[in-house]
Amino acid sequence: MPPETREPMRHAGMRERNLAVLLGVIAANQPVTRARLAALTGFTKTTVSNLIAVLAEAGLVHDGDMLHEGDRGRPGIGVSVNGTGAAGLGLEVNVDYLAAAVLDLGRRVRYRLLVAADNRNRKPAEIAVALARLAGQAFDSAAEQGLPVIGATVALPGLVDRSGMFRAPNFPWDDVPAAAFTDLGLSGLKLPTRAENEANLAALGELWFGAGRANLGDFVHVSGEIGIGAGVVLDGRVFQGAHGYAGELGHLQVDPAGEPCACGARGCLERAAGRDAILRAAGLGDMLADHALAGPLEPLSALTTLLDSGDPAATEAVGRAGEALGRALTDVVKVIDPDTIVLGGIFSTIAPWTLPSVEKALRAGGLYGQVPTVVVSSLGEHAAVLGAAGRIIEHLYSDPALLLR
Amino acid sequence: MPPETREPMRHAGMRERNLAVLLGVIAANQPVTRARLAALTGFTKTTVSNLIAVLAEAGLVHDGDMLHEGDRGRPGIGVSVNGTGAAGLGLEVNVDYLAAAVLDLGRRVRYRLLVAADNRNRKPAEIAVALARLAGQAFDSAAEQGLPVIGATVALPGLVDRSGMFRAPNFPWDDVPAAAFTDLGLSGLKLPTRAENEANLAALGELWFGAGRANLGDFVHVSGEIGIGAGVVLDGRVFQGAHGYAGELGHLQVDPAGEPCACGARGCLERAAGRDAILRAAGLGDMLADHALAGPLEPLSALTTLLDSGDPAATEAVGRAGEALGRALTDVVKVIDPDTIVLGGIFSTIAPWTLPSVEKALRAGGLYGQVPTVVVSSLGEHAAVLGAAGRIIEHLYSDPALLLR
Repeated sequence: MPPETREPMRHAGMRERNLAVLLGVIAANQPVTRARLAALTGFTKTTVSNLIAVLAEAGLVHDGDMLHEGDRGRPGIGVSVNGTGAAGLGLEVNVDYLAAAVLDLGRRVRYRLLVAADNRNRKPAEIAVALARLAGQAFDSAAEQGLPVIGATVALPGLVDRSGMFRAPNFPWDDVPAAAFTDLGLSGLKLPTRAENEANLAALGELWFGAGRANLGDFVHVSGEIGIGAGVVLDGRVFQGAHGYAGELGHLQVDPAGEPCACGARGCLERAAGRDAILRAAGLGDMLADHALAGPLEPLSALTTLLDSGDPAATEAVGRAGEALGRALTDVVKVIDPDTIVLGGIFSTIAPWTLPSVEKALRAGGLYGQVPTVVVSSLGEHAAVLGAAGRIIEHLYSDPALLLR
Repeated sequence: MPPETREPMRHAGMRERNLAVLLGVIAANQPVTRARLAALTGFTKTTVSNLIAVLAEAGLVHDGDMLHEGDRGRPGIGVSVNGTGAAGLGLEVNVDYLAAAVLDLGRRVRYRLLVAADNRNRKPAEIAVALARLAGQAFDSAAEQGLPVIGATVALPGLVDRSGMFRAPNFPWDDVPAAAFTDLGLSGLKLPTRAENEANLAALGELWFGAGRANLGDFVHVSGEIGIGAGVVLDGRVFQGAHGYAGELGHLQVDPAGEPCACGARGCLERAAGRDAILRAAGLGDMLADHALAGPLEPLSALTTLLDSGDPAATEAVGRAGEALGRALTDVVKVIDPDTIVLGGIFSTIAPWTLPSVEKALRAGGLYGQVPTVVVSSLGEHAAVLGAAGRIIEHLYSDPALLLR
């Protein structure tokens, strides 16, 4: 059989690669002199200077004050990443809200907006109009702050398959092309825009801006909203699976005798531990009827109020949800054996009450050395939209030559 | 936060890398002239000649007859991989057999032995003595064939964690260091020997020697013996997980009300679809008592005889096992979304009766576009020991400089 043949390294991609290496090293050590950059990268000083000239022309780095490095070194000009050299736009369509965020090249949040929206009772075209309005506002704010937005990512609450179809069992409409939410007709903007699964982007948000900064190793980020998804991060990258469907946590079966799910199976985790299931079990089902008025956060704060007061039904409901989540996660651990699990979305909000039952189920599940650490997201509902904006920025760091083409 | 920094390419590892590239290209195109190798790799002809000299000195390639390539090219000497330049030894300890295999550098099987052994009623030290005897026989046969064995891999039927402990719920003894089966005291051999999970090695065996040759994409190989494991192959490599426990298919819960498992959980797949469970359900439980005499293959051929005759209990037993396996695989698909599932071990033997129920369960499990292709292993019980020997050969192809150090 033919062995795995690999392309020999050629010089064509070397400059692009070296630009990315240098930009990364500048970001991690800024401000930093050319001499020190040469020592850190192994490039010659001439190469460092030439590459910096290219990055500076693209607006990605700039020179600052003179620096004295160490005791004996001669002073040199400090080079830094130009935080305002580029920006990424993140957008999110969720079942009951829309969101937007702008991140600059220094990975600072420059704009963030979350608006309640009863998207289950709207058509895709109506949602797209509302989303385009949000995108326009975010873009205007970026422009006012002098930030050139170079691309956008739209987080969608369901699966986007390789053929670009968006499939979300939590909406009443049939599959639609994801392009319905990326061709936003923003006149004159012409932003490269692509759609991705919300759970995957939330995991990236966590990696870049949340708990992931503490070196979680391989981790699974649980996105708990009305639906439940998971983003799997292996070696610092989202693992998508062969068809883009990896991490379908919400549809793992936790009860073979459970109620039917919109996905076609029965007893899915989402039916036992999704937001609406928890609210109903806690006696807050009424609030779901008034949903369009209440917005996404009101029923959840009603729930935490009940939990704070020690309400037995609410406590029981949340404990059971945690137990079901823990059992589904036990299966995930048996399949992919991650270092860490991050509880995100509503599970971060109700973590004080669910975390113990999640951990108990994991301990009872026949795991050996591989019981993962369970941590709580610090980003909650903002993880996905930050991951969406971060995608653009990280893409630029991994290939700064993008801006030169 | 610091971005993902990458090491700039240095020249230190370039020669090793280029040796691997060239050896791979020779193997895929042999016999092949130096001129054509230069065209295929992008290396200069001088570089090709220098690298070939190094590979030839290590005994990995040799010159053959003159070749005419194409219509116009001048004739040149054909270079080929030296199939007898090195060999890898694979060893396997399973619950009811021991096995050994030798592969040469041309990836041909030079020796293969499978011996029934009632390992559940032996202590680890006794098993190691028997395994050392097999290893010695395989090594002698390789020597007689003029094959220098350069390393060995031992497949173990359970988890080998990062700290080197071997944990197998299907044996009555406690955890032992995997070194119990790698320090074989083969006097004078001094082979570098390491232990690995049988399910992972079976997946590699399938990738290199079986169904995997047909470009399966990302796949999950199901190792069905007395225990059930799975090897997950992503991007042509086994995915091990954070602690080496990925692919614990046999302990996914298929029945929350099912019987307790040695792992500590209940209703595990292994209790419903492992070999002994199937034999008992098919009315062949008696044969398990005589196990030490019967060997691993006898009860299985009794089962297929019953199935061939249309025996209702056996057909029902195997169909139920397939359904349980299909439900567990549905969860695996939801977590990692592979292109293909390969049914190996006993599931390849009884595939005509189990495959339909596996596929039915997958179709009923709420999957969308990600229903994977299910194929049957052509290697069956030999997959793991071939994968174990193959590890050595593939290691050499990926780093031929190993032999120079």
